Amino acid sequence: MSDSTTAIARSARLASVAMQSVTNEQKNEALLAIKKFLIDRRQEIFEANEKDKKLAQEQVALGKLSSSLFKRLDICQSDKFDTIVSGVSDICHLPDPTKRITLATKLDNDLSLYRVSVPVGVLLTIFEARPEVVVNISCLALKSGNAVILKGGKEALHTNAVLAKVIQDALSHSSVPREAVQIVETREDIDALLDLDRYIDLVVPRGSNSLVKYIQNHTRIPVLGHADGICSVFIDEEADMNKATRIVVDAKTNYPAACNSAETLLVHASWLASGKFTVLATALLKAGIQLRCNPDILAALDGLKAEFGAQIQAATPEDFDTEFLDTILAVKSVKDVHEAIAHINDHGSKHTDCIVTENKPRAELFMTQVDAAGCYWNASTRFADGFRYGFGAEVGVSTNKTHARGPVGLEGLVIYKYRVHGNGNVAGEYGTGQKQYLHTPISPENYEI
Amino acid sequence: MSDSTTAIARSARLASVAMQSVTNEQKNEALLAIKKFLIDRRQEIFEANEKDKKLAQEQVALGKLSSSLFKRLDICQSDKFDTIVSGVSDICHLPDPTKRITLATKLDNDLSLYRVSVPVGVLLTIFEARPEVVVNISCLALKSGNAVILKGGKEALHTNAVLAKVIQDALSHSSVPREAVQIVETREDIDALLDLDRYIDLVVPRGSNSLVKYIQNHTRIPVLGHADGICSVFIDEEADMNKATRIVVDAKTNYPAACNSAETLLVHASWLASGKFTVLATALLKAGIQLRCNPDILAALDGLKAEFGAQIQAATPEDFDTEFLDTILAVKSVKDVHEAIAHINDHGSKHTDCIVTENKPRAELFMTQVDAAGCYWNASTRFADGFRYGFGAEVGVSTNKTHARGPVGLEGLVIYKYRVHGNGNVAGEYGTGQKQYLHTPISPENYEI
Repeated sequence: MSDSTTAIARSARLASVAMQSVTNEQKNEALLAIKKFLIDRRQEIFEANEKDKKLAQEQVALGKLSSSLFKRLDICQSDKFDTIVSGVSDICHLPDPTKRITLATKLDNDLSLYRVSVPVGVLLTIFEARPEVVVNISCLALKSGNAVILKGGKEALHTNAVLAKVIQDALSHSSVPREAVQIVETREDIDALLDLDRYIDLVVPRGSNSLVKYIQNHTRIPVLGHADGICSVFIDEEADMNKATRIVVDAKTNYPAACNSAETLLVHASWLASGKFTVLATALLKAGIQLRCNPDILAALDGLKAEFGAQIQAATPEDFDTEFLDTILAVKSVKDVHEAIAHINDHGSKHTDCIVTENKPRAELFMTQVDAAGCYWNASTRFADGFRYGFGAEVGVSTNKTHARGPVGLEGLVIYKYRVHGNGNVAGEYGTGQKQYLHTPISPENYEI
Repeated sequence: MSDSTTAIARSARLASVAMQSVTNEQKNEALLAIKKFLIDRRQEIFEANEKDKKLAQEQVALGKLSSSLFKRLDICQSDKFDTIVSGVSDICHLPDPTKRITLATKLDNDLSLYRVSVPVGVLLTIFEARPEVVVNISCLALKSGNAVILKGGKEALHTNAVLAKVIQDALSHSSVPREAVQIVETREDIDALLDLDRYIDLVVPRGSNSLVKYIQNHTRIPVLGHADGICSVFIDEEADMNKATRIVVDAKTNYPAACNSAETLLVHASWLASGKFTVLATALLKAGIQLRCNPDILAALDGLKAEFGAQIQAATPEDFDTEFLDTILAVKSVKDVHEAIAHINDHGSKHTDCIVTENKPRAELFMTQVDAAGCYWNASTRFADGFRYGFGAEVGVSTNKTHARGPVGLEGLVIYKYRVHGNGNVAGEYGTGQKQYLHTPISPENYEI
């Protein structure tokens, strides 16, 4: 088993080297071939998906699989499959993220330095139920010049295998090596691959909190992504009531299961005394949200208990460290923006946090001192998304503080290398009393790579 | 012990949050204060250094410490101390790497997105003999807005402690919190700190291969740096003889103990038949280099054995995976550029590799397909250095493929955050049949942070 995974990883590495020389046109031709093959072999894909769904249905009947997971498995509805296919075209139309010159310096008259963006190399993607990830991640990897090894959930085993086969067959008709996309099927394969930092450059998990944490704790390979998404909204003393209500209701209710939904609401104490908070809380309660409140908040909502009953509860300390992914919000009063910043830096997950205020210096302080990939002023945390940021594609949202952070598009799948052009230059001839470095910028327009 | 290290890490984190609001002027004032305090308390520093040297001398006499390590310990020579002090001014004069806007997009008429560079947060630096690292890394950390925890070698215990104390006293007279620079002294502290990924964002080891490998294997925190530096030079069929000789001799002999020195020489087979290689090899042998050769190379050098004897040896397979850091070079013949690329991608350390050729397409292929932080055409690998690249400072050389790669200056100590400015915008109002995202670029000049 371990021998075969090593062979897979090694062939992915070789494919990745060959892909460094594949042009953007050739990558786009490969993507269009994938699109054509998906359409042509739709029947074969649907049959595999039916097989998975039949087996999954038995698991649902036995109570061993949730119906929501079953739903995500299904790619046979016409619009779902069409969306998958049109996603391939979308990625094809994005600009090539490689070969961008980010620094160009003349070191000497005959010695030039260029920093250019290049593919990261070999990606390993581990995901759960949704089989469309096979297509989506393969296309993102190809467009950014990376090879990819995929491992999906066992419920989608047949669908994933056929999708990968169709993509590989399409690649056989292109300039991209077939081994640029490979699939493995067992948990043992994953454990073996997570150990192969010699061949694999980046792990991209797409799935539950526990999946991501497991991977982070079992590999030396860098992991792109996030485990928790504990986003907070802070309502400042000088917040506008209308904006505050709109933002908090959207951030909590627009899609509670998303990582960019609010899980914690921090409210300036003055809002409790003035009664403003009761108006905001009523909007949340009417939207069906359960509020888990610290003592001050609980006291302020006393008058609403008759109407909303169990929706108003006392918070435990753990509630402020929890990603509910549900219609639940932890609520706490704070005495000022400093306490809000300290709470977020201590309990947040460095994902996305928002201040609602009309006071600009206070907004600046919050956005400067909160250590998160996204710091928002008067806007819902739900905008933290690659498509909404205009990236055209999303690999995931990263809370890493080295390399890609926040919503990650194709740029997150490239890194740079330095290219030096000399004329026989040797370091021993430069220094005090010898040749001097010029260090003048070069206009990179005429540099062809 | 663990409680006290947690307290140190936590106070470093709090200092790091406060430092987000410190301006470049305030950071420079702090650096100038450090410079002044170093000069004023030179006597105290020298006394501590004499104490360390006295203890070290005893270890040298007992054969427990090398004399080269003893030499690196000494900062009392006047020019050495002056260099340390002037290094503080140099860092002070570099541009602030934070608050740079790298993306600015209008998402809607009242919703703006900015990606700005920010400090990474809390750094942990672990280094060996040289006490000047205390000053150098503290200043680099401050200039980039980071807090830092330092751990030096036990031979320099007294010197390191006084240097850290002097820096902290200087910070007490500045806008930068005193806790922005802290020092720990025991190996147990390090093991405890390597576990505190909650407070520490980046580990920067400065020292031997074995130190770096130990750290990489004992922490979940990202590590900036490199273990091996196995750099190769490939002499192509169409290499210019003069350039080839100059480059290989410089890359091997200019400073054999440096990570950017060549450890492997790959020679196109045609150079053996033509006798050109004998000329190149003679230059290396005359420079005192020992050549560890594969069978073809060994046969080609048969005529030189009488003169250079033991300098010409047969290579073992391990020689091509070894960072000698010495006057030794592993030499192998290859049949073409493809074999050279494959050898380097298989045996190299992704640090810096060079092709010597007058054939431009072949140079392009090499620079495109070799997976290394630096790909050089007709220039010595010894140029792989932050100062030589014009960065003005060097934190280290990184072989990482996420975030900083190659020589790392201040830019390697910052990451970005996204700042969003809205007007009560909510995600639920955007989408098909609703508001549309604009995604137009914003000119960032007028954005003040």
